[in-house]
Parts: sequence; C-alpha cells; structure tokens
Amino acid sequence: MRTGRLEAFSDGVIAILITIMVLELHVPEEPTWSSLHEELPVLLSYPLSFVYLGIYWNNHHHMLQATERVDGLVLWANLHLLFWLSLVPFATGWMGETTFATVPTEAYGVVLLAAALAYYALQWSIIRCEGPGSLLHVAVGRDRKGKLSPLFYLAAMVLTLVDRWLGVAMYVLVALLWLVPDRRVERVLTRTPPAA
Amino acid sequence: MRTGRLEAFSDGVIAILITIMVLELHVPEEPTWSSLHEELPVLLSYPLSFVYLGIYWNNHHHMLQATERVDGLVLWANLHLLFWLSLVPFATGWMGETTFATVPTEAYGVVLLAAALAYYALQWSIIRCEGPGSLLHVAVGRDRKGKLSPLFYLAAMVLTLVDRWLGVAMYVLVALLWLVPDRRVERVLTRTPPAA
Amino acid sequence: MRTGRLEAFSDGVIAILITIMVLELHVPEEPTWSSLHEELPVLLSYPLSFVYLGIYWNNHHHMLQATERVDGLVLWANLHLLFWLSLVPFATGWMGETTFATVPTEAYGVVLLAAALAYYALQWSIIRCEGPGSLLHVAVGRDRKGKLSPLFYLAAMVLTLVDRWLGVAMYVLVALLWLVPDRRVERVLTRTPPAA
Amino acid sequence: MRTGRLEAFSDGVIAILITIMVLELHVPEEPTWSSLHEELPVLLSYPLSFVYLGIYWNNHHHMLQATERVDGLVLWANLHLLFWLSLVPFATGWMGETTFATVPTEAYGVVLLAAALAYYALQWSIIRCEGPGSLLHVAVGRDRKGKLSPLFYLAAMVLTLVDRWLGVAMYVLVALLWLVPDRRVERVLTRTPPAA
Repeated sequence: MRTGRLEAFSDGVIAILITIMVLELHVPEEPTWSSLHEELPVLLSYPLSFVYLGIYWNNHHHMLQATERVDGLVLWANLHLLFWLSLVPFATGWMGETTFATVPTEAYGVVLLAAALAYYALQWSIIRCEGPGSLLHVAVGRDRKGKLSPLFYLAAMVLTLVDRWLGVAMYVLVALLWLVPDRRVERVLTRTPPAA
Repeated sequence: MRTGRLEAFSDGVIAILITIMVLELHVPEEPTWSSLHEELPVLLSYPLSFVYLGIYWNNHHHMLQATERVDGLVLWANLHLLFWLSLVPFATGWMGETTFATVPTEAYGVVLLAAALAYYALQWSIIRCEGPGSLLHVAVGRDRKGKLSPLFYLAAMVLTLVDRWLGVAMYVLVALLWLVPDRRVERVLTRTPPAA
Repeated sequence: MRTGRLEAFSDGVIAILITIMVLELHVPEEPTWSSLHEELPVLLSYPLSFVYLGIYWNNHHHMLQATERVDGLVLWANLHLLFWLSLVPFATGWMGETTFATVPTEAYGVVLLAAALAYYALQWSIIRCEGPGSLLHVAVGRDRKGKLSPLFYLAAMVLTLVDRWLGVAMYVLVALLWLVPDRRVERVLTRTPPAA
Repeated sequence: MRTGRLEAFSDGVIAILITIMVLELHVPEEPTWSSLHEELPVLLSYPLSFVYLGIYWNNHHHMLQATERVDGLVLWANLHLLFWLSLVPFATGWMGETTFATVPTEAYGVVLLAAALAYYALQWSIIRCEGPGSLLHVAVGRDRKGKLSPLFYLAAMVLTLVDRWLGVAMYVLVALLWLVPDRRVERVLTRTPPAA
C-alpha cells in the first residue's frame, strides 16, 4: 500500500484543525481595542496551538518521506494520532476562554501528551511494517528530542499545579524547542559536535 | 475516467466530517473537571463516530485501490455515500447532547444503516462499470462481514427500544468488529482456517 | 500552467461547502421524532443543495478533464464560480429556517442563477485560453441543457412569486434534470435519436 | 524536499479559510429583503476578503511553480504566512459586524500588512534555499507591485483614521490592483513599454 492517500488525508485533517481553531476566536462585541484586549487569552492560546499543529504537520511530513510501505495497522495508528490532534482546538478553546485556568491548562497537557504518545505509536507501527532495514528506523535512532517531549509535557502539568503560568511557559518552551532547526538542538542536547 | 479526483474529493469530505464533529464539543463553562464530566456523553459519542468515519475512509481507500475505471453512476453513488456520512456529525451531536436518549440513538442507527446500504450501492456500481473481470468483484466475493453490518445496525436499533445502553453497546461492538484486522475476523465468522 | 492545482483547490472548496452546510442543521432540542419534524424544512433544503453542489463538482470535473491549459483569467473565472457556490450554504440556511418563505426562496434562485452564469464565464475563459482547436469547445457545442439552466432558474424565481412551492418544485426539477444520465436527457430535449 | 505536499497543505488551508468566512454570514432572522439589507456590511466585507485570499492563493501558486526545492525554514515561513491569512476571517467578521468601525478596520489593515510581510519572508526564504541561480529570484526582480503593497496597507490604515470609508476604498483599490492582469499594471506603474 502506498503512502500518498495517507499523506493527503492527514494533511486535510491537520489543515482543517489549524483553521477551525479560528472559529473559536469570537468577534469582540465592541469596536474598540480594549474589547480586543479582553479576547487576549484566546488570541494568545491560538498561535501556541497553531505552532504545535504546525510542528506535527512538519514532523509527519518528514516521517512519511522516510516511509515506503504502510499496512492496516499504520492506517489506524495514523487515525489515532489524528484523533488526539483533533482535540487540540477543544482544549485550546477551553484554556483560552478561562484565561489559562488550572484545570483546562492541565487538560491541554493531557491532549499534548496523548498526541506525543500516539506519534511514537505511529512511528513504531511504520518500523514494524517495513522490517529491520527500515529507513525510518535508522533516521529516528538518535531521536533524543522526541523521547524527551512526553517528559516535558508531564513537567508542564506538574508545574501548572504550582503556578499555571509556569505550566504555560513550559508549553511555550517545548514548542520553541521544536521550532529551532533540528541539528542545532540535537547538538545542544547531546553536547557533541555535529556530524560533518 | 480515472479514480484520482474521486479519491481526493472523498478524502476531503471525510476529513472535514471527522473534524467538524469537534465543533460540537462545546467548551465547558466552568474550568473544573466536573464541568468536563457533564460533557461526558458528547465526549464519548465523538470517538465512536470518529472510529466509524475512520472505518469508512479505510474501506473506501481499499475499495478504490481495487478499482480502475469509474463512470457517471459511480460518481453519484459515491456522492450518495458521502451524503449519509455527512449526517453522522448531526446524529452524533443529537445523541451526545441528549445523553444517548432513545430517539436520537435510533436516528444514529438510521444514518449508519443508510451509509452501509449506500456503501454497497457504490460497490455494486463500480463492479457494474468494470464488468465481470472486475478485481473488486473477486475481492468482495467473500465479504461476509460487510453483508452482516446492516443486520447488526438493525439489531442495535431494536435493542435500543429495549434499553438504549444495549443499543449503544451494539454500535461499539460493530465498530470494534471492523477495527480488528480483517483476516482474523473472517476466520472467526467463517470458522475455517486462514489461507496460507 | 497545468490544471492540477486548480482542480485540487476547487475540490477542496466544494468539499468544504458540501459539508459545512451540515453545521446549519441545528441539533433538535428535544429527543423526540416530532422535534426532528420541526427541523424538516432545513433537513429537506440540505439534500437539495447537496445535489446542486454535487452537480457542479461533477460538471467541473468533466470540464477540466477536457482542458489542457489555463491562464490567469481562468484562475479568476474559477474563483468567481467558487464565490457564488460559497453562498449556497447561506441561501440554503435562510430558505430552510424560514420554511421556504418567498424572499429567501427568491434569494436561493439568485445564487443558483449567478453560479450558472459564472460557470459559463469559466467555460468561455477556458475556450478563449486554449484557442479554436479546444477540445472543450467541441464538447460543449451541443450544450443545450446548459444553455437552458439559467432560463429554468428565472422561471423558478417567477413561479416562487405565484406560489413558493411551485418555485421549490422547479428547483427540484432542474436538479433531477442534471442527475439523470446526460445522453438520455439530450435525446429528450432535442427529440433526435442519439448518435451511434 | 519536494514542493508537492507544501502546495497541497497550503491549498487546503486557504480553501478552508475562504469558505469558513461564510459561517460568519449569519442567516437573517426575518424572511425579507430589508432583513438581508441589515446584513449588508457583512455581505460586502465577505467578497473583499474572498478576493484577497484568492489573490494570495494565485500568487502562492505562481511562486511555488517557480520553486524547485524547499527546506525546513521554508516550511515554517509558509506556516507563518498561513497563520496571518487564518486571521483574515476573524478580522473580516469584526469589521463587517461593526459596519466598518474605525478600530476593526485598522485591525483588518494590520492583518493584511502582516500577511504581506510574511509573503516576502517566504519569498526570501525560498530564494535563500535555492541559492543565487534561483528561478524565483529572477522572476521577482521586477516585483514593483509587491514592494508597494505594504505601503498601500499603511496608507489605508492612516486614511481610516481620517475617514473609515477612505480606508475601505483603499483596501478595495489594492485588491483591484492585484486583480487586473499583471503586465498592464506593471506598465502603468513603471511607465515603460512592456517587454516584447
């Protein structure tokens, strides 16, 4: 089975998720800047989730470029990842409309953590389908950043209990960690000089 | 006529349906776990329909991989299937918001039953278009699971009249039946050892 | 310029339009069949517009299969058609929620008429771009049904002034006219035996 | 890295943005033409933004046709452009529902200005990725219209402070400037005869 339609379907779902979050941005009632200011928590939570979904699209893109064959299990592992990503707009809206209250900010972390685990399950299912010579298997061999993400989300959820803004800061930090070019981050994390 | 654009259009519609269901998940008013708990029926009906739409996407994908040519009738049979699938978010929302009340749970069954029948009409229209040598015709020759689905939906609708939770359990059961890998289910249903 | 991305973009827009109409189907407040019955006008206007958008997707598909080259004017003629189609959910919702009242039913006709004229403008722009040897030019030479559509919509708008149900019946009739296989309709309309 | 999936994803997002704006067009409460008349500001702001998003899709299409390779930075520059475009429905809704009040009309200009700057950042990132021989670099060498756009948006924002309708007129003018075929506008702007 080829990967073409899997890519197209995933792109479709992520493109829709990234845009329907805009529907949560309710038009302010008054035509004033202060009225826009009241929407600020929602307006700030939106770019954060936009970046997270962008990171997933980006990584999903790279993962499938290193993939040649998929089977039924991979299709379902992919739908499982899309399911958790589809809850991002819901969690974002709840967090934004309650001005980053503790419980919704924890719920946001639960969704991000579940999505991260679903991503590894997808990665594992592709490597299992392709066998030991899998190009993806070689590529993710040094996937330190990926393995740390779930720990960072757990840390953010614990920090949220202490002070919700510490939790939010942690979510922003993990997003930035994925945004900066890969090689440099890996260098920092492994403290070894980059290959060639 | 090639199948490419038919696949792309169907993928687009199913991807949108699977994601606009999230818009039915209203953000809880209070930032508390108990407030999320009140949304539980909606939060439970959502993954059920997500799985059903995933199953249709998956099967549609397989069906069109075994298809070489389509004609005008196939295009309309496909739109007919998409029409019934497009009512899934509506039926899901009604069922979830009324905590699986009897009538909405029956309506959910009506939509699933109509979608299942539309799926067979599409299958039949492709085989009719391709003629007796159709690869799809050979592939669905042993389609026992497919032929049983409408009966299962009817059973769920009858069970809902007895006790709505029995009906819901039946919908979950049919979804699981399609989720587990095909070959093993067929073996169970036909009670014959698997080929090679 | 190739037609691939034009097709993909148009498919995307039509797929979204066909599905966001479902968002107009408000979940009934009570879990009863009579509550669903109150939604009947909306539930009836939805399949009508679904069929119209399906017809446009179908015809658009055929038109672009006979097209080899597009230029800037064609891109804009296509966006112009998509603009009018994008008003279909709005007109459908207004017509449905007012139980096919006169003014919304007229407005529905205005949108269908404008879409039909935009479709011919697109056809003309493609033929102009490809020059006299255009395959599409040959194909639409006998396009009697297409030329009659705007007249039918005008007739429906006049009939709506007499009795709105006559207007609705006319919209349904035009949709059916496009649904039945092309060759047989042409035979009826031209009263000549079909070629070969 | 090829451009195919980048194009498909961007098309998906723009197609969704162009259509979800329709969801802001609330169905009028009364079935009368005057009731539709009250929706007029929203109905007028919608085609303006439809045209702007159409222009971006069109230019994005042309830009990527002149592009052969993309890297990680280009993917993020593209997501950055899509982020600002995704705020167009929000700004359009606010501007329309407040009948083009000053602050929302300024906010509309901010979003258009940010999108224009994000477009140049994307252009620059592609040229940087492809190196000095970049086909895109040659193509945009004479990009006078592009360089003037941000100035026009700034002018519109200043004019809005004087009289909001002057600002709106400026937004319409810039849209028209991009709508008319490229070569003729360039000729007007540069006052030199067109090449060959």
